[in-house]
Amino acid sequence: MGEWVLSKQDIEDIAVGAAVLGTGGGGDPYLGKLMSLQVLEKGKKIVLVDPRDVDNESFIIAPAFMGTPVTMFEKLPSGLESVKVVHMLEEYFGRKADFLTPIEAGGLNSTIPLYVGAISERTLIDGDGMGRAFPELQMVTFHLYGVKATPMALADEKGNGVILDTVDNFWAEKIARVITIRVGGWASIAIYPMNGEVYKKAVVANTISKAAEIGRAIRESKKHGKNPVDAVLDVTHGYRLFEGKIIDVSRWIRAGFAKGEVLIEGLNEYKGKKMKIQFQNENLVAILDGEVVASVPDLISILDMETAEPITTERLRYGYRVVVVGIPCDPKWRTPKALEVVGPRYFGYNIDYIPIEERVKKLGLG
Amino acid sequence: MGEWVLSKQDIEDIAVGAAVLGTGGGGDPYLGKLMSLQVLEKGKKIVLVDPRDVDNESFIIAPAFMGTPVTMFEKLPSGLESVKVVHMLEEYFGRKADFLTPIEAGGLNSTIPLYVGAISERTLIDGDGMGRAFPELQMVTFHLYGVKATPMALADEKGNGVILDTVDNFWAEKIARVITIRVGGWASIAIYPMNGEVYKKAVVANTISKAAEIGRAIRESKKHGKNPVDAVLDVTHGYRLFEGKIIDVSRWIRAGFAKGEVLIEGLNEYKGKKMKIQFQNENLVAILDGEVVASVPDLISILDMETAEPITTERLRYGYRVVVVGIPCDPKWRTPKALEVVGPRYFGYNIDYIPIEERVKKLGLG
Repeated sequence: MGEWVLSKQDIEDIAVGAAVLGTGGGGDPYLGKLMSLQVLEKGKKIVLVDPRDVDNESFIIAPAFMGTPVTMFEKLPSGLESVKVVHMLEEYFGRKADFLTPIEAGGLNSTIPLYVGAISERTLIDGDGMGRAFPELQMVTFHLYGVKATPMALADEKGNGVILDTVDNFWAEKIARVITIRVGGWASIAIYPMNGEVYKKAVVANTISKAAEIGRAIRESKKHGKNPVDAVLDVTHGYRLFEGKIIDVSRWIRAGFAKGEVLIEGLNEYKGKKMKIQFQNENLVAILDGEVVASVPDLISILDMETAEPITTERLRYGYRVVVVGIPCDPKWRTPKALEVVGPRYFGYNIDYIPIEERVKKLGLG
Repeated sequence: MGEWVLSKQDIEDIAVGAAVLGTGGGGDPYLGKLMSLQVLEKGKKIVLVDPRDVDNESFIIAPAFMGTPVTMFEKLPSGLESVKVVHMLEEYFGRKADFLTPIEAGGLNSTIPLYVGAISERTLIDGDGMGRAFPELQMVTFHLYGVKATPMALADEKGNGVILDTVDNFWAEKIARVITIRVGGWASIAIYPMNGEVYKKAVVANTISKAAEIGRAIRESKKHGKNPVDAVLDVTHGYRLFEGKIIDVSRWIRAGFAKGEVLIEGLNEYKGKKMKIQFQNENLVAILDGEVVASVPDLISILDMETAEPITTERLRYGYRVVVVGIPCDPKWRTPKALEVVGPRYFGYNIDYIPIEERVKKLGLG
């Protein structure tokens, strides 16, 4: 694709699409969108390249936020922490990053790298390590391909900074998580330093352009009088799983994660049915009248019924009329090894992963 | 004093004296003693110099253990973590340490640096940052003189390593503490990197030789038929506060600290009286029939009545016959600024600090 220089419209579209791919978590992309738009107005550019255009010898770093999205609204990041962690890691390696990559295609962690790339004048790659959002550091395709999360840098808004070098990615997750909780609920991180050769094997490619495509499809559907949820399903090859009104939301914070569940009462053709969706930062499992209809690693997103605007877990409220959509995950997540890392059993569900295509076919949904 | 090359007897004596100065905490010096003796047998030397012999331009690092002493007996350190953290910090600064300094004169953290010095062939300084033991990272005279605890290195026995750079020493304590808890209760640290000029102003000097002197006094008293507790009091200018039998011990772990209290029923001239001692890793306050007789930062140590062997808080047991001694702290701890950091109010006691000399005079003790 050569270089893709983002317009303001692209950023708006990416933020909407990233919220769909965020499956309720990853933080609201809104914040990263505002920061990215602001930096464009200062004359900076946001430039992305296709993963195929990355040299094998390139040095790549993934900047991101770690923590509980709700706490970001209590104490807003300045964005400088995100630049600082990239610099910390560059200093550690004694080498400037050739590219930055988003680690998630969903939520805040898809739009924040745009800001970091612009402000630090680094080129971004149109790809990520998930093709969606996930709650833990080792839940990235990079991990599946043997890339170490560490050395990683972590910083808070107060000026505290940490470099971690751990024996494995699970320990990176555990140690970084307690630090994140201790410094107030979220932290900026720079993680998964790697070269272009492994990156190109491990990446879920073209997910930022996919997010832009989703956002654009929703926006243009409004112009053409098309149902915006149908537009999302067309672009993502997704399934309409349920329509209804939210009648209950419970939330609790445990070990630094925003956990909870939402109960939706069916409307229209789903009248008389109920869907329960359980989440840990992201939506994990959708259960229709006691039957699982979708589970991680497939994507479960809750969209506003009228506008298809995605609703993050922290914004779920009683009375919202919503459509629940399910989207097949990237094939990299469907191997036995990958399912050990992100399958329903890892999250404590005693069920096998069945690809959403098979589930909806069996149940006659979508 | 020129160079002081430790003999095996010196190490034995230091371990005993360090347990007295450890005021019940700082971990049992026994472990560091064994490790130090072992390394001497491999032909290594343990060399100490007087603080006055340290150049202003010298680069000094303090290696130590952080965490709950009891957890060290559950998973023993190999000692290599302690060498690794020194190397991590040296690599961070791009400079080899000219000297290592103990951070505590009490407990494990007085004997562990001897091992690290020997194995990494670095000279130690006969001084520390406390003249006793304290439970938190900022509770050192270095902190009072404006030295930053960070950049500091932290490592566990599994191979996880962390470099911290925090906005102040309280944040170093908070972040390092949660990491320490997460990796299993203890961690090796290398901390308070500083130059010789500030070190010489901030140090509590000649505390390792003081520990050796205490240990030697106890040992020789046995030869000469002198009461070993009296020998300790002579060398430390301390006071006999109580004698009795332990009748109750309570312990709990909270936020990574070993907290608790011990109740002692009076014997001999103290018959009919009771002393309660409360601790957080170290003994904090000694209360005689409801009246405070000694408090931090003065030293409160519990010694075996017959042998004067110091008893750490984790080894306190029902039935032990003990003598409680109080020892004046270094004058550096008696300023208003210092008392904000280590005075009784910091530990949650609503009492003023009164120097032990005044308390015992008023109460007619000692």
